[in-house]
Amino acid sequence: MKISVGILGATGSVGQKFVQLLSGHPWFEITALAASERTAGKTYGEVVHWFQSTPIPEQIAAMKILECDPSLPCRIVFSGLDAAVAGEIEERFARAGYLVVSNAKNHRWDEDVPLLIPEINSDHLQLVKHQPYGKGAIVTNPNCSTTGLAMALKPLHDRFGLEKVLVVTLQALSGAGFPGVASLDITDNVIPLISGEEEKVQTEPLKILGKYENGKVRQQKFAISAHCNRVAVLDGHLECVSVGLVKPATSEELIESWNSFSSEPQQLELPTAPQQPIRYFHEPHFPQPRLHRNLDKGMAVSIGRLRACPLLDWKFVLLSHNTVRGAAGGAILNAELMVKKGLV
Amino acid sequence: MKISVGILGATGSVGQKFVQLLSGHPWFEITALAASERTAGKTYGEVVHWFQSTPIPEQIAAMKILECDPSLPCRIVFSGLDAAVAGEIEERFARAGYLVVSNAKNHRWDEDVPLLIPEINSDHLQLVKHQPYGKGAIVTNPNCSTTGLAMALKPLHDRFGLEKVLVVTLQALSGAGFPGVASLDITDNVIPLISGEEEKVQTEPLKILGKYENGKVRQQKFAISAHCNRVAVLDGHLECVSVGLVKPATSEELIESWNSFSSEPQQLELPTAPQQPIRYFHEPHFPQPRLHRNLDKGMAVSIGRLRACPLLDWKFVLLSHNTVRGAAGGAILNAELMVKKGLV
Amino acid sequence: MKISVGILGATGSVGQKFVQLLSGHPWFEITALAASERTAGKTYGEVVHWFQSTPIPEQIAAMKILECDPSLPCRIVFSGLDAAVAGEIEERFARAGYLVVSNAKNHRWDEDVPLLIPEINSDHLQLVKHQPYGKGAIVTNPNCSTTGLAMALKPLHDRFGLEKVLVVTLQALSGAGFPGVASLDITDNVIPLISGEEEKVQTEPLKILGKYENGKVRQQKFAISAHCNRVAVLDGHLECVSVGLVKPATSEELIESWNSFSSEPQQLELPTAPQQPIRYFHEPHFPQPRLHRNLDKGMAVSIGRLRACPLLDWKFVLLSHNTVRGAAGGAILNAELMVKKGLV
Amino acid sequence: MKISVGILGATGSVGQKFVQLLSGHPWFEITALAASERTAGKTYGEVVHWFQSTPIPEQIAAMKILECDPSLPCRIVFSGLDAAVAGEIEERFARAGYLVVSNAKNHRWDEDVPLLIPEINSDHLQLVKHQPYGKGAIVTNPNCSTTGLAMALKPLHDRFGLEKVLVVTLQALSGAGFPGVASLDITDNVIPLISGEEEKVQTEPLKILGKYENGKVRQQKFAISAHCNRVAVLDGHLECVSVGLVKPATSEELIESWNSFSSEPQQLELPTAPQQPIRYFHEPHFPQPRLHRNLDKGMAVSIGRLRACPLLDWKFVLLSHNTVRGAAGGAILNAELMVKKGLV
Repeated sequence: MKISVGILGATGSVGQKFVQLLSGHPWFEITALAASERTAGKTYGEVVHWFQSTPIPEQIAAMKILECDPSLPCRIVFSGLDAAVAGEIEERFARAGYLVVSNAKNHRWDEDVPLLIPEINSDHLQLVKHQPYGKGAIVTNPNCSTTGLAMALKPLHDRFGLEKVLVVTLQALSGAGFPGVASLDITDNVIPLISGEEEKVQTEPLKILGKYENGKVRQQKFAISAHCNRVAVLDGHLECVSVGLVKPATSEELIESWNSFSSEPQQLELPTAPQQPIRYFHEPHFPQPRLHRNLDKGMAVSIGRLRACPLLDWKFVLLSHNTVRGAAGGAILNAELMVKKGLV
Repeated sequence: MKISVGILGATGSVGQKFVQLLSGHPWFEITALAASERTAGKTYGEVVHWFQSTPIPEQIAAMKILECDPSLPCRIVFSGLDAAVAGEIEERFARAGYLVVSNAKNHRWDEDVPLLIPEINSDHLQLVKHQPYGKGAIVTNPNCSTTGLAMALKPLHDRFGLEKVLVVTLQALSGAGFPGVASLDITDNVIPLISGEEEKVQTEPLKILGKYENGKVRQQKFAISAHCNRVAVLDGHLECVSVGLVKPATSEELIESWNSFSSEPQQLELPTAPQQPIRYFHEPHFPQPRLHRNLDKGMAVSIGRLRACPLLDWKFVLLSHNTVRGAAGGAILNAELMVKKGLV
Repeated sequence: MKISVGILGATGSVGQKFVQLLSGHPWFEITALAASERTAGKTYGEVVHWFQSTPIPEQIAAMKILECDPSLPCRIVFSGLDAAVAGEIEERFARAGYLVVSNAKNHRWDEDVPLLIPEINSDHLQLVKHQPYGKGAIVTNPNCSTTGLAMALKPLHDRFGLEKVLVVTLQALSGAGFPGVASLDITDNVIPLISGEEEKVQTEPLKILGKYENGKVRQQKFAISAHCNRVAVLDGHLECVSVGLVKPATSEELIESWNSFSSEPQQLELPTAPQQPIRYFHEPHFPQPRLHRNLDKGMAVSIGRLRACPLLDWKFVLLSHNTVRGAAGGAILNAELMVKKGLV
Repeated sequence: MKISVGILGATGSVGQKFVQLLSGHPWFEITALAASERTAGKTYGEVVHWFQSTPIPEQIAAMKILECDPSLPCRIVFSGLDAAVAGEIEERFARAGYLVVSNAKNHRWDEDVPLLIPEINSDHLQLVKHQPYGKGAIVTNPNCSTTGLAMALKPLHDRFGLEKVLVVTLQALSGAGFPGVASLDITDNVIPLISGEEEKVQTEPLKILGKYENGKVRQQKFAISAHCNRVAVLDGHLECVSVGLVKPATSEELIESWNSFSSEPQQLELPTAPQQPIRYFHEPHFPQPRLHRNLDKGMAVSIGRLRACPLLDWKFVLLSHNTVRGAAGGAILNAELMVKKGLV
């Protein structure tokens, strides 16, 4: 029997991705769709401005939208809520005993809330014991730009130590939600600002890569500088990264550390886990958003163009699907990990 | 009476821009259009795949295309030739006594050839005396990505000293010439490689900002790291820059050094010179390619988003029109400088 | 001394175009900018999300925004208001003695309101005498897709008679206002519906080409079928047209009827009038939005690809700038005509 | 055991689609990849500029490219050759006993060659008996714009009779092959000409819908007018269609005729056949290229916006995937039909 799950903010950009990825999921079954009061009572199909390239599953389209109230008929709620409202609503659900798997930023920095990427820090899940929510709990996944970066940094951090990271992102439109970026603003253009994004990219990896000790996560201290841009791409964040390492490394060692990287989700064979979490491309013009964002169901991170950096030690390009690996898919993987670990 | 000028590679992307910018020029008159043998003898209008957003001037469209042979009826030749052929042809013209104002890379690193940006290094023009071409000469302008960067760095270099520069470019399609980038490659996509570009951006500023002494240019030594990307923008290269400076500076001082920057082309009132070569925007989401590439006839460099860099000292965004300031417009400004200095 | 003008809905897409085109106008001077209550009291520069490719004129940026109240310090108001509010506000201004030159649809079908294109039906201006507004008056310009079509049809109608018109439009993003079309909806896509648009295109030309007789406009009766699409183009509506004519015509006659078309705005030398209102291109792949939308300051209509239609008589392609000729520029031309005719 | 197949022109746009669709095909196995002499001898992975959004299958990437010579180790050849060379090469293969399933235009109008869409005219396959190729044969599929149109017209033709068809296409970039349309030509633009396309759309449906009698196909006679445009969409041709019918019909009858349409490929359960070949969408803004091109593996035709046409009887919008249904997928369906009918 499947585990019942609900989606908070089901009509939004991330909500739609939750619907798409959870339809046909082997463990989970969508039993509740919740959104704003304004839409509650109507069917999902009537209300949603669906812009995924596969059709809305018919039984989902026929479901009535409920209010974001902790009376939803499900055990887990996936939250794609806007940060303006997510904080309080998610807490209410946790207090009412739900497992809240959130993509919102509000609780990411709570001391007892894991900022979770199962390949990197599944031990942070222990934080949940310290939460005041009884049977309920909140776990979060990072910002969409952080996720791909943290994945690429993890093997380097483990083997060679990180000292400095400089990253410039070229981020996709779907990261801004719907309606998000106006076509008049982005056609034949780049927008060199994503409000609040650089702060997240500069800090979240430090918690994610932090050490769990004595019931707490001790953050890393290396320096990160980020510059975030919006470009005219539908899905897939591309990031140009320069890194300074503690120990010397050859390019072969770096590539090997990425290609051989495998972790708990792969060992546990979680349904949403990519087979090979990181893939290095030797073609000099790869990775590219349109060509590689869907690699391994959109859950793998693609890397390429490793070369010496005249300022730091190495530079490279990475690509990660922002609404799959960096949002809904990442959250679902978090939930799968918790199920497998007996936390649900 | 106007000075007669010819355009080598007149049908290409840069060649078209030369035609557009030289039509109606107060000092210069196009008297020769030269291109490949295949097109020679036909009219420009028949042959060119014109993609500028203003019509081809009628008298230009009716001109016969000539071969790239040093028998063109003109005093100056502007070269928009492809690097595959530019080197030798330009030399032949110089030897025959023409002033060759080139946008091609071939002669940029010749010891006696200035890599010229009139606002930065007009004294490098003295190199021309050492050229073996008699009445003829070759001057070059830098790569389209270098130009905007070098302009933004110049005031910082003069006042605060440069130690380190890291730049990630988001470059426009017109930089690749015509047909250039296939629409199937760039639609809903980014290409994280522009072949040979990073090398140019990492080295050209060192010569441009170099010191002319004893008949030679002594290069600067600071470190530059570049990562170059192609994005779906028609014109205008955006660059995300982090810099490390020798002396401490406040953001006000940096902004003031840009906004107050003015140089010889402004003093000489060269026709193509921008009134204010660098303009800082305080709006947090500026500059943007579509909005600011045409600032001051496409000859001004726009800067914005100055803020502290957690790794180096400062970071900011710059924008410069790649086929105007960074190619044809820059070359025309070079020619104007030479005329005013009595070198023509 | 210039005539004082105000702009209603000054921050919107059409409002911005009014600002851009009226800045530096030889007859008119912007003395009032009005927008929603929410923005009133702030400066234009603070409030507007400017997305034109030339900077906001500085003195305009510093102007305080006023409410859309008939106490504006000006003689003429240009209305770029949304149809949801335009109807009543415009009437209030007319009653208070203002000349209202509107781009909104609300009053286009009032019996005593001209639906004006100066090149086509300047005699319809006589309707104004029958308006109940005293010194005030309302004149309207047509929908942005109608304008280019009506211009192209006018010479055919006069010389050969129109029986049938079938038009399929490929309309630009700026026609939807700001924020308008979401980038997630139009990237790598076409939207084959523009709500309410087909009805306008199917009816407005019948009034525009109608005959003014005995104080009324008698509509034309020919049949028009329209299909309207939104495409990923910033400015410039392209239309594929098939026409059935009453009298036989050769392609030479049709082309000559377009190229030689000239009318009152040209004779009166109105400042915004294009020199040649319609231009036929013989190049088989012309006209194109990006290349030709700015022809003659964006006020000329471009036509090409005339060829026999297997179903009706002839087919061709036309292009017209939707926010210039089809909105703000068209409205300004209407005002210029009224000034020259002594109606202001 | 699978049937061995080869691909002619395997590196091109259609060739890549053949590779993608035939990999993992239940009946066919790719045993030969052929392309230009220049590439012969190298591996497919070295040579192809792959731009599909799924990776090249590894065993395909490792295959050596062969010359387009009738010595390929396979029974069927799929031809994605350019029309400049396809005619003669395909004949040579047919004479050598291969079954040639071609996407090229060269033999479409041969009297003894079927222009085949299995849902429409599978009886035309009988023409093959009259071919002079012995064991070999040539069958063709129509132009990519014709296919979707012919599918949509088929049920109308059968039930209500067709008199007149006017179609305006908005065609995707992939239809032009690779490199095809330059990004500088199509960004922020529409190209209102696709050379040779209108002639195909105006004639091919007449053969496809023709009647097979006495060893010949008798063409239909109704009039078709086409206008073809290129828009900035990767895949999926959208078409705006107006039709005049012989018999009166209600919109319900038309919609029902499309939704209930099913034919031989469905009955024979051909692997590539869509379950429901035509799907009508009631949402007023559907179908759209990005949302619906992949419907039913890209083999279904989507229709929407049926409404009365003021000139003809009805108008509607259709969408069809140009490189799947309109090219490689259509050709594979043709081959499947021939296998099932015992012709291979």
